[in-house]
Amino acid sequence: MQFVFCNLQHLCRKATRDLRKRNSVCKQIFRRFTITVRLADFSKWGTTKKNRKLKIQITQDILDPKMEEILSSLRNRVKEQGDYVRKLKADGALEIDIKMAIAELKHRKKLLEDKEVSLSHIIFDRARMEDLLKRRFFFDQSFAIYGGISGQFDFGPMGCAFKANLINTWRNFFILEDQMLEVDCSILTPEPVLQASGHVDRFTDLMVKDVKTGECFRLDHLIKSHLEKVIGNKKTDENVRKECEDTITKLDGMTKERMIEVMAKYDIKSPTTGSNLTKPIEFNLMFGTQIGPSGLMKGFLRPETAQGIFVNFKRLLNFNQDKLPFAAAQIGNAFRNEISPRSGLLRVREFTMAEIEYFYHPYETEHPKFEDIKDLSVLLYTEIDQMEGKSAQYITLGDAVSRLIIENEILAYFIGRIYLFLIKVGINPKKLRFRQHMENEIAHYACDCWDAECLTSYGWIECVGCADRGCYDLVQHAQSTGVKLVAERKLPVPRSRELLRVVPNKVIIGRTFKKESKLVLETLEKASENNILNMQSDFNLNGGSEISLPNGTKVYITENMVEIEKYRKTIYVEEVIPYVIEPSFGIGRIMYAILEHNFRIREGDEKRTYFSLPPIVAPLKCSVLPLSSNNEFVPFVKQLSRNLTKVNVSHKVDDSSGSIGRRYARTDEIAIPFGITIDFDTLKVPHTATLRERDSMGQVRINLDEIPDVVRDLSDGKLTWSEVEKKYPKFEQQETTETK
Amino acid sequence: MQFVFCNLQHLCRKATRDLRKRNSVCKQIFRRFTITVRLADFSKWGTTKKNRKLKIQITQDILDPKMEEILSSLRNRVKEQGDYVRKLKADGALEIDIKMAIAELKHRKKLLEDKEVSLSHIIFDRARMEDLLKRRFFFDQSFAIYGGISGQFDFGPMGCAFKANLINTWRNFFILEDQMLEVDCSILTPEPVLQASGHVDRFTDLMVKDVKTGECFRLDHLIKSHLEKVIGNKKTDENVRKECEDTITKLDGMTKERMIEVMAKYDIKSPTTGSNLTKPIEFNLMFGTQIGPSGLMKGFLRPETAQGIFVNFKRLLNFNQDKLPFAAAQIGNAFRNEISPRSGLLRVREFTMAEIEYFYHPYETEHPKFEDIKDLSVLLYTEIDQMEGKSAQYITLGDAVSRLIIENEILAYFIGRIYLFLIKVGINPKKLRFRQHMENEIAHYACDCWDAECLTSYGWIECVGCADRGCYDLVQHAQSTGVKLVAERKLPVPRSRELLRVVPNKVIIGRTFKKESKLVLETLEKASENNILNMQSDFNLNGGSEISLPNGTKVYITENMVEIEKYRKTIYVEEVIPYVIEPSFGIGRIMYAILEHNFRIREGDEKRTYFSLPPIVAPLKCSVLPLSSNNEFVPFVKQLSRNLTKVNVSHKVDDSSGSIGRRYARTDEIAIPFGITIDFDTLKVPHTATLRERDSMGQVRINLDEIPDVVRDLSDGKLTWSEVEKKYPKFEQQETTETK
Repeated sequence: MQFVFCNLQHLCRKATRDLRKRNSVCKQIFRRFTITVRLADFSKWGTTKKNRKLKIQITQDILDPKMEEILSSLRNRVKEQGDYVRKLKADGALEIDIKMAIAELKHRKKLLEDKEVSLSHIIFDRARMEDLLKRRFFFDQSFAIYGGISGQFDFGPMGCAFKANLINTWRNFFILEDQMLEVDCSILTPEPVLQASGHVDRFTDLMVKDVKTGECFRLDHLIKSHLEKVIGNKKTDENVRKECEDTITKLDGMTKERMIEVMAKYDIKSPTTGSNLTKPIEFNLMFGTQIGPSGLMKGFLRPETAQGIFVNFKRLLNFNQDKLPFAAAQIGNAFRNEISPRSGLLRVREFTMAEIEYFYHPYETEHPKFEDIKDLSVLLYTEIDQMEGKSAQYITLGDAVSRLIIENEILAYFIGRIYLFLIKVGINPKKLRFRQHMENEIAHYACDCWDAECLTSYGWIECVGCADRGCYDLVQHAQSTGVKLVAERKLPVPRSRELLRVVPNKVIIGRTFKKESKLVLETLEKASENNILNMQSDFNLNGGSEISLPNGTKVYITENMVEIEKYRKTIYVEEVIPYVIEPSFGIGRIMYAILEHNFRIREGDEKRTYFSLPPIVAPLKCSVLPLSSNNEFVPFVKQLSRNLTKVNVSHKVDDSSGSIGRRYARTDEIAIPFGITIDFDTLKVPHTATLRERDSMGQVRINLDEIPDVVRDLSDGKLTWSEVEKKYPKFEQQETTETK
Repeated sequence: MQFVFCNLQHLCRKATRDLRKRNSVCKQIFRRFTITVRLADFSKWGTTKKNRKLKIQITQDILDPKMEEILSSLRNRVKEQGDYVRKLKADGALEIDIKMAIAELKHRKKLLEDKEVSLSHIIFDRARMEDLLKRRFFFDQSFAIYGGISGQFDFGPMGCAFKANLINTWRNFFILEDQMLEVDCSILTPEPVLQASGHVDRFTDLMVKDVKTGECFRLDHLIKSHLEKVIGNKKTDENVRKECEDTITKLDGMTKERMIEVMAKYDIKSPTTGSNLTKPIEFNLMFGTQIGPSGLMKGFLRPETAQGIFVNFKRLLNFNQDKLPFAAAQIGNAFRNEISPRSGLLRVREFTMAEIEYFYHPYETEHPKFEDIKDLSVLLYTEIDQMEGKSAQYITLGDAVSRLIIENEILAYFIGRIYLFLIKVGINPKKLRFRQHMENEIAHYACDCWDAECLTSYGWIECVGCADRGCYDLVQHAQSTGVKLVAERKLPVPRSRELLRVVPNKVIIGRTFKKESKLVLETLEKASENNILNMQSDFNLNGGSEISLPNGTKVYITENMVEIEKYRKTIYVEEVIPYVIEPSFGIGRIMYAILEHNFRIREGDEKRTYFSLPPIVAPLKCSVLPLSSNNEFVPFVKQLSRNLTKVNVSHKVDDSSGSIGRRYARTDEIAIPFGITIDFDTLKVPHTATLRERDSMGQVRINLDEIPDVVRDLSDGKLTWSEVEKKYPKFEQQETTETK
């Protein structure tokens, strides 16, 4: 019963989202009037450099009038349709009509979004970046010598070090900072666990097969590429072309039935053989295997790390001395058998995730550290704004909570922390927004979700999801296993509750039911509150009530056989199924977005490309370069390398031939932020060397003994380059632009 | 041709192992005479504390006369049999006889080993340690609420932090120190890769199935438990009992045929149903799955991380500017579908490995940092010593190389580094040895292997393997893909080589072969050195030679049609297939051994158990404990926690009720090495707190501001507790022994 109740709670939560939305609509109007006030407010906040910077962004993004002009007609078209959808819902229209209207809404939204991206986004030379990534082996296709497999990548030394640094930063930023409970759970997961979580039934994509060869195609991709061909054909009629374009933009979220219609209409065949295609089937995206040798225990590679935390909930609660709230976290690999992976690191078959599950009492939604982030202004793109065709808006997280735009302090706290983390590791804050999921894209387990999206040459891509999973997962696992997954909370004041019980008249019952009377008495004793209420209402109506015995027999209880009695009970603790907020990070996607946001071409030297990765995540912290192959440099290089290792500064000695400028260019390519050169002045006492910063190419001369600590502090962010430039004498040298 | 040659090279390498062995036999005699000298030598080395300590161990382990007396008869029996095996080999006896003799040798070796372990090993209370591990959720069975799965474990907060610290220490100790190229490769591996590596065919265990239920049993485990039952039966005849014991000790390495005999002899049936069993089948231990949706691309979860490095060899060589030697490393999960996993963390279905592949030129076996480890004295257990029934011997790595006990400097360097790493993370050096694989246990890819084994309550367990893989893997992948996996090396001196070429008489050929003459000329031009030699010998015998054209036709070339000419060519570079030394670490096994070696019971208080993990790997570095729930302590606790986070010191605030002694006991249980207590003296200016060390329970009082840096330096090993005790005033307080 409790579980059913909680599933209801989960549904209610979904419903309150609607309430919040309506509330939010009212707030929208308010917001329009206050926007100038808010902007004016920034002058007060602008006491730190950081805030001043934010102000500039906001002004640019919200107020660029030229851009707004171009976008306004598209915005109006979205808003029109959004209003229409709301009207249909209010009028209780047919579901199919609502669905069609939502599809049209998404279509218009996409046109608006594409235009926004094309207006705001500088042309990005992805091919050049990819060339660099491949050439210096940041990452590349797995098993290439065997022909390679799509959707699988190997990280080379630089990609791997970048990834390890990113994960370490994440661990310090989230787990250490908030003393989360980190776990490391099994990847191989038995079927019943993923049956309960809903993944066995619902984690699918539509697929069709070539009837002759069995080749598989992801249906939406197939339709898209077919229609693109039709569009590209010169003979195609203008109307048909427009219709095709229209269909392509509506593909995302299209129903299976509609897709079948499209396939029939355009007579879509297998693109490789021209054969017919099967009907679309739901293809489960999990990799299946057998655990143990019997072939009888089906298992899957986990599609997310979260389930490992949920099934360990009781142990974790116990570790936390049975107290709520607490956060658990896990960093590890997950697997999805994509039908046709593409877009490099963005859609892959195995990937590293870092997930947090914050368990809390559903009525205690305050967060103790909310103060720390409440004045942070982030770009939010609410469901309402998306429906209205507006662009994302900067708003402080404190405002977002008080205006009910973000559900509660906990969700807002994590959005703030995600924002700060992404900025710290190199995401460009101008290309970062938090978008609320629309009703038809939300996962089966969530009641609300905000994605941290980064703008890349592929458009806005989801890098972090921040979902409100309610009590969905704990309820599902409790139902499947019969194990109570609850926390107990001592009530602040013991509660007295009025309850009902049945007091049977044993004489009459014995006389009436004879042999069965024992079973009747037992059943009456165990009657639930609901059963008793039903019985009472039956008595009132008919003077008697039918009850079922455990052996299946039904007996008729008359009013004279029992007395229904009220009594009071004092309750000291309550059982609570915790709610869960889940920030879930896609490490590979974040890495890709950081790489794009930090890809640079050296001004005045188009041939020199590099990555301006923040030192904290840069694969190596510094290079050690002897100016030439002069033997006298060797002991200095060795000693310096040893001293850097001692203070845990990762570095690369490059004693290859080639000018110092060429070697700088090589180290810039692999994002090394600092370079130490051993030159002829090093040989003199006191021994010194030059230290160069990658982005500015500025150089100073420092005592050799001091260098390891200085580089360590620069790498940890405890020292800035401008502080170093102030403290040490500048070293001037024309950097040669020769590359190869 | 080249590849065949290299496979021969690989075989030759296996053969040289025999040569080394023979050499080593001679050295044994030498060693017997020099052992006293060596021990005397220690007095000279004993200048540092470390070496003095080593000396004591050596004296104890080698010279304990009482132990030697008990063991000597067992040793003699092993030696006898070892001599017999050698004699059989020398006499060219039948293979089956040699195999049987080796099985008997292993049997005697095991009896000796068991006795050694039982004599040297203190009784270890494994149940108590396991209780602590479970209770404080270091790790526990995965999916327990679903009934659990054997061979799968989840690491809880303390186990996970311990693991993360161990991995980080590994990364700094190996990758950073030697500037290795770390990679992070795919887990899902397509079949052809593992076909080439030999895993599809040879990575198997013998299994039998219940013919009725299909239940599976690992054959050796099944036989063992059946025979144990026979032994346990009171009615069993003494001779039969002895025979059973004998069979059990010989199980390891027993042939399939012999096992079938044993099954028949003892009429072994399914232990659960009593049904008949199938014939033994070779069960492949890899988890299979399908990559992509077609169901046509078979893949496996990788059984080791190494293959990801081998298939990326060319990229890594290129990253290293095409130079040998270099080391690549990988930390990640691997999977083995064990038939019947047991022994907790020691035999599991998924596990984390850290592997290094050191690629080097086969003739350049010096290591630049060999000097750093050559004076290290480690316990080596050579194949010879095992055959002779001797115990393992302490020897310096320098001696081991010069006496040909260890193949070369590279292998010795890694053995030394493995030793230093294991000691650093908490392995007891007295319970650590390096055992050389015996001939019949070496993996299919290796030509020599030394295991770092740790003594635990399960006996000596392999924690790190250090294998000489020769050029096996690169050759296999090159053969399978047709991609050259070689390094080029500039020859120190260009080499002049005499070569052969065919100079055709175009007129005669044109006249003879007409239309086909063009193809004949082309074929002759491309003829290989071998083809030309064959042609020459045909000419000498018959005056003519048949050659095949690319279109399949065969033509007869007579002596007058061509001239075979010698010429000289200068060669500047040579192609080399690198050899590989592979240190491979089982992270879970190392963790288990560390836990056993560091499990302690508090003297004078049997109820208090704890882990004395070294700070560098301890899950949390310190605890923060307010003396009581007094509100005045709260701001100090908060500020201290913030300051600890700032310097990346992981910690746990325990403000629960309970005496300070009880809370210390709780933090001891989870291995927290340092504890800070905020007490009433903290409230006074200057603010101070007490700092306690877990193992000694010593306490000092320190200025609150200084504490974070002191704890950080203690955790990093930059400061020792005795230094802290000298510098700060001692704090005296009787620690309460109350536990719960």
